[in-house]
Amino acid sequence: MTEVVSAAAEPLPLDQGLEVLTTQQCLARLAGARLGRVGVTMGALPAIFPVNYVLRDGALYFRTGEGSKLTAALNSAVVAFEIDEADGIEHSGWSVLVVGRSELVDSHELESLGPLRVAPWPGGERTHVVRIVPQHISGRRISHGRT
Amino acid sequence: MTEVVSAAAEPLPLDQGLEVLTTQQCLARLAGARLGRVGVTMGALPAIFPVNYVLRDGALYFRTGEGSKLTAALNSAVVAFEIDEADGIEHSGWSVLVVGRSELVDSHELESLGPLRVAPWPGGERTHVVRIVPQHISGRRISHGRT
Repeated sequence: MTEVVSAAAEPLPLDQGLEVLTTQQCLARLAGARLGRVGVTMGALPAIFPVNYVLRDGALYFRTGEGSKLTAALNSAVVAFEIDEADGIEHSGWSVLVVGRSELVDSHELESLGPLRVAPWPGGERTHVVRIVPQHISGRRISHGRT
Repeated sequence: MTEVVSAAAEPLPLDQGLEVLTTQQCLARLAGARLGRVGVTMGALPAIFPVNYVLRDGALYFRTGEGSKLTAALNSAVVAFEIDEADGIEHSGWSVLVVGRSELVDSHELESLGPLRVAPWPGGERTHVVRIVPQHISGRRISHGRT
C-alpha cells in the first residue's frame, strides 16, 4: 500500500473535548468496525452508500453489484470512506475518515487474496470486490461534547 | 422547499430482499434519526462528516464551526446526506440518501426559525447553522439480506 499521511502522529487534544486520533488509532477502529460509508460522485452528484467492509493489509474491501452505477463510479476514483459511533447519552463519539483511490479487484487478485470475510450490504449477488487504498486517514474523538 | 423527486412512489420490492422506500418512508426515517453524515467536496477531495441534525419543515439543519473548512464547503454546494441503520445479526438494515443544496442560515432567519433542538457533533461552539434543502430523496431497506 502507499504511505498513509495522517494529520496526527500522536493523540492531539483540541478545544472542547475534541481529540485528533493517530493513524494507528484510526486503523484500529477501521479494523474493529464492519459498516462504513462510501462517498462518491455519481452523474456529477455526490452520493453516500453504506457498505459492509473488511480491512486487509491496510486496504478496505467491500462488495458491489455487477454493472451497478456504484461499481462504475468506484472504478479508479478518489473516494471518501467513513465510520463513526455516537453515544447520545454520554455526548461522546468518534469518526474516522479515509480518502483514497478505489479500484475493482480482478479475479486473479481475488484468488491470491483468498476468502474475504465480508458480506454485501444488500443481500444477494454482489460479484464485484472493490478496494480502497487509503492515501489520507484522519479521525476525531469527542470525549465530553457539550450541548 | 422545492419539490422532492424520489425514486419510488410506493414501496417497491426488489430482488434479494431489497426494497426501495417511498419518499414518505424516507422522511419518516429522517425525522426519527439524529446522527447523519454529510458528503461534500473539500479542496477537490471528497469527505464525509458525521453531524447531529434535525428535520424541520422538510429541510435538514445542523451546526458547524465558524470559519471551518466544512462551513466554507457547505456554502451553496450540492451535498449528499445519509442516515442508516444495520442489524448484523438479522442481516437487515436500511439507508436513506438525500441530495440537495446546502446553505448557511443567516441570523435573521435563525430568529424566525426559533430554537433548533440540535446539538453540534463535536461539543462546544458551533455557531453556524447549515440547512440542506432536499432535491432528491431515496432509501432502501434490506429485509432478509443473504450472506
